[in-house]
Parts: sequence; structure tokens; C-alpha cells
Amino acid sequence: MIQASWKASTGWATPELKPYGPLSLMPTASVLHYATECFEGLKVFRGYDGKLRVFRPDRNAARLRMSSERISLPVFEPSQIEKLIIALLSVDGTKWLPKERAGSFLYIRPTVIGTAPQLGVGAPKEALLYIIITYMPRLDAPPGGMRLHTSPEDMVRAWVGGFGYAKVGANYGPSLLATADARVRGFHQILWLYGQQGECTEAGASNFFVIWKRKDGKKEIITAPLDDKLILDGVTRRSCLELFRERLNGEYEITERKYTIDEVIEADAEGRILESFAAGTAYFICPISQIHHRGKNIDIPMGPEATPGEVTSKVKGWLGDIIYGREQHKWGVIIPEKE
Amino acid sequence: MIQASWKASTGWATPELKPYGPLSLMPTASVLHYATECFEGLKVFRGYDGKLRVFRPDRNAARLRMSSERISLPVFEPSQIEKLIIALLSVDGTKWLPKERAGSFLYIRPTVIGTAPQLGVGAPKEALLYIIITYMPRLDAPPGGMRLHTSPEDMVRAWVGGFGYAKVGANYGPSLLATADARVRGFHQILWLYGQQGECTEAGASNFFVIWKRKDGKKEIITAPLDDKLILDGVTRRSCLELFRERLNGEYEITERKYTIDEVIEADAEGRILESFAAGTAYFICPISQIHHRGKNIDIPMGPEATPGEVTSKVKGWLGDIIYGREQHKWGVIIPEKE
Repeated sequence: MIQASWKASTGWATPELKPYGPLSLMPTASVLHYATECFEGLKVFRGYDGKLRVFRPDRNAARLRMSSERISLPVFEPSQIEKLIIALLSVDGTKWLPKERAGSFLYIRPTVIGTAPQLGVGAPKEALLYIIITYMPRLDAPPGGMRLHTSPEDMVRAWVGGFGYAKVGANYGPSLLATADARVRGFHQILWLYGQQGECTEAGASNFFVIWKRKDGKKEIITAPLDDKLILDGVTRRSCLELFRERLNGEYEITERKYTIDEVIEADAEGRILESFAAGTAYFICPISQIHHRGKNIDIPMGPEATPGEVTSKVKGWLGDIIYGREQHKWGVIIPEKE
Repeated sequence: MIQASWKASTGWATPELKPYGPLSLMPTASVLHYATECFEGLKVFRGYDGKLRVFRPDRNAARLRMSSERISLPVFEPSQIEKLIIALLSVDGTKWLPKERAGSFLYIRPTVIGTAPQLGVGAPKEALLYIIITYMPRLDAPPGGMRLHTSPEDMVRAWVGGFGYAKVGANYGPSLLATADARVRGFHQILWLYGQQGECTEAGASNFFVIWKRKDGKKEIITAPLDDKLILDGVTRRSCLELFRERLNGEYEITERKYTIDEVIEADAEGRILESFAAGTAYFICPISQIHHRGKNIDIPMGPEATPGEVTSKVKGWLGDIIYGREQHKWGVIIPEKE
């Protein structure tokens, strides 16, 4: 793991490469009381061309800086974080993801926490940045597709004026209760609705896409917009939109706008829903087969034998080609390895 | 400090009394990523009668259980927490708050954190409850009274359907940025407004009271209600309301309802504002002298020579008498001490 400590008085210390092991924190550490914490998630992939790649780490580094500032933790040059990630992977990537494991990945978790031992409610005067690497199971193909349960009426994930756009711990802990309830009922994740109209925002901790026929007959790929800062500016979300605009333009309208669960229900009733998927680093591109909303099931079409639908398959294929080196693309950043 | 660990498989271990020192947490511990954390704050007072007291610990214990459940941490019998607090104070209270320090207090911080080393977003399978005791400065009498700045238009502390009523870390970290901005501008705390109408909710991390003359000439003590779960059910808030209803009934209307910053501004313009104070464990009863809202100052009357006003003084006196044993009251729970 990589660690770098920070003090308000002296700034950042030189980052150190250390063996993975426990952190020592005072019981009064800011992070344990006031959730002064933020993180990122990205993956490193062993390509079919033998190369090790990370996907758009510049995006994660920039978002970590933004999240850190939002939660009153210290800021840094995003390019420095990118360098640290690459330095760590140059050492550990080859070891844990050897060349014969083409098509495999590891998960990278950069984290910033407030370590200052201070119970006074204020910005922490000491912090720690660390980067760890772990295994993570594949989550992108639950048998039969991902089933979503809409959020309970009395529970909201994020709100306008809040911090739903930042990858801070405070967005996750409070959502666990609803997710656990949904799991007990046999669903995988919550579809978080917002406001009186029930705007569709996120699916679990992933972004949410619907592909449908509009009333005018035009095919459309739709996802919630970023402008009111309710949802996370997902790297996978952004990459999907960029690829759709580049490769499906003309065939589909690509739309970022607010849309409600009632629009989804209406489209379902009129047989206009084509596909739906969740997009994120952990779940990659995960086809959605069902949405349950207040006692009613919306069944979403999938491909033959519960494979992903056409658009879902295409974007999953394109991204897979980029991350595993079947397509050379600027988004796949190659990690230098010693021979 | 007292520590008790919990595992999903085996439940709570026997609590242990340990010397104060650092905690060892894995870098993947749930609390460091997903803000699975909650806490309480209460004080122990050395009375003028020589006795050691805590104030309504049953309330804090019950709230800790509620917060713990809300943030997907394990639950427990509140009475057990109360017993642990009293056990810890029976040992450390005498030592750190000897009999000659009448009129002094220490701060007690029970905390529950998710310790499970798991990056998967889910309820932590391991947790730690600990109780620590620290010194805390007196915060209830900033020279000239507390000055509040209303929350920025693009920042909301809590929302209906959220978790503003629970004492979870996720309510604190995200509010630090606005508080730091207010401090730079010369204010002590944020007055958090909610919704289009600008409902007055909390002052910093304290509850907020206004005493005014209503348009019908009747004197009123007003504070935000608990019913939409936006604000913390403060023990001091609740105690103030109970004492007001018992001791000022007839003289003042005691009202819990939504009221807006525009109502406060109007009352100010019509010379109807009498007093205002913040109520909480950390700030105790703290008179408010000014509210700044979008470029405009509302000056709040105080007593002569910047002392608290009449109602503020009265309730501060009543509570002070209870906690320091000048009035024997069931809220002041006596800690048994060895001679």
C-alpha cells in the first residue's frame, strides 16, 4: 500500500510504499466521528496483449480531489495521485496479476481520511491518504440480470444542495439500510428516486441507464443529468455516453435529462422499454431485468437466454476491448512493468 | 476507555475497561469508507454538593441505539450503555474530576464504528463500541454572544427522508465546509435553513430557539419540530421544552412548529424579537446575538452587558442547578464513587 500523511502546519509528507497492514488511529480521530473520508474505486486489468492497464485514472484522481475538498480534507494535484497509482501498480500489478491471468483484474481503492485526534467539530488538521489493492469478485452478470427495488418513500439517498456528486463515505453508510431491506425481498440494489415526481437517479452505487422507444418512435438512451449535483459523475457513465455519441449517433438519441419512474412505468405499459443497465466501476456494465415499484414489477427485456440486450452488449464489448487491450484506446493507460 | 467488540456471527463480546490508546483498524475497515459510525456526547459534572452527576444518560443511550440502527451498525439494550457509562465514570470520574473541582465537567463520547475489513458496500459484519472521556472547553458564552450565518443557498444540512435526526458521522463531515466559510466571515456557526421557504432548523450542531412577541402580542418560545426527522432530538432541547412548559406556562407560549427565516426577519423589523439561544450538550445554553442572512444582519437583544436575556438566563440557571446538584432532580443521575 501507499501512504502519505498530511498536516495543516506542514502539508503533505513524502508518500511511502509500505506492506499492507493495520492503521493506528486515535479513538478521537475525526474520520471515526464526523465521516471526514472519501475514496475512489478503479480497476487494473491484465490485457489479452499481455499489458497491464488502468482505465482513465485521471478522472478518478480529479474526482478524489473534488471529494476531498467537499468533505474538508486536504487537496492535492490530481496528477500526483495518478502517478502514485501507477507507481504502486508497477510494483504490485505484475505480482498479483501475472501475464498468464489475461482477462483478470484487481480493484484499487485510493482513500483520504481525517486522522486528527480532535472531537471539536471542525476541518481535520491531520489526514492520511492511502492506496490499497484488493481482489473483487465479478459483479456484472448476476444470473437473470440485476433486479432493482425502488427506494422507500421515506428514504432519500441524496438531495439538491447535498453531496450526492462526491464520493464521500456519508453517501454510503446511510443507504445500507434500504439496500439490506431490498436484499431480504430478493432484489439486488435500490433504484434511488428523488423528489415528488420520483426522478430516477442511481441504481445502488452505480449510474442507471434506460433504453426505450420514445412516443415519437425514436430510440433513445437516457440517463440522469449531472447538473443538480444529485448523482455521481461516474467514469463508466461518462465513458458510455461518449462511446454512444461516437458510435451509435443517428441510431439512438443520447439524452441526459431528468426522467421519472412514472415515465418508465408508462413506457413499460406501452411496450416501449428496450433495455436497461447499471454502469459503474464495481458492477461494470450490468444488465437490469426488473424494477419493482410500490407493489408492481416492471420486467425489462434482455437478450436471448438472459444475455444483455443489444446496446448493453455493445457498450460492454467496447469497454471490455479497451480495458483488456483488444482495442488500443487513450482511455486504457498502460502500466510500465519490469520484465 | 471502555471497549466492546461485536461480530455478526457471535454478537457482542464482554466489554473491557482499557487504558486509553490508539485503535488498530484495517485500511479496508467499513467506517473509513462508508461512514458506518455514530456517536453520543454527554457530560459528567462535579456538583457543588460534592457529587458526580451525568445528565439524563438514558436519553443518550436510547439515541445511540437509534443512530446505530439507522447506520446499519448493531443494536444493544440502551440500559447496558448507561451502565457502561456509569461504570467508566465510577473509575475515572473521581480521578479526573476530584471533589475540589466543583463546577467543572468532562465530556463523554460513546462511539460505535464498523470495523469489518470489507470493501463490498454492505452492513459491516464487525463493529466496535467504545466510550472515552475528554476535557472540553466551555463554549456557552462567546464574548458578545454567538453570531450565526444562514446556510449558503446551495447547501443543505439534512433533508426529509434523510438522517438529520440521527447522530451519525454523515451529518457532520459534509457541514464542515459551510462552517469554515462562516468562521472566515467572522461568524461562529451556521443557521441551517431548509426548503424553499427557509425553515430555521439547527444552529451549528445545536438546536435553535427564538423567543419573540407574536403579532397578537403573546410572548412565545419557538423551536423547530421533530416530526419530519430533519433535526436532532437534542437532550438539552427536550429538557428546555419540558422546563419551559413546567415553569413558564402562562407567561410564554411554548411552540414546536416550522418557522422561517422570513418570519424572524419580519419580527425583527417589527421589534418583536426578545431573545434567541442555541441548546446542546457541547454549547450548553448559548445566547445568540446576531443572525446574518443574505447581506442583512438581524441583531438579537441580549441582557445588560451582553449577558443572556431573561428566558435564556432562566433556563441556563435551572439546568445548571440540576447538573451541579444545587437542585435535586431526577435528570441528574449520581455516579457512585468509592470514598
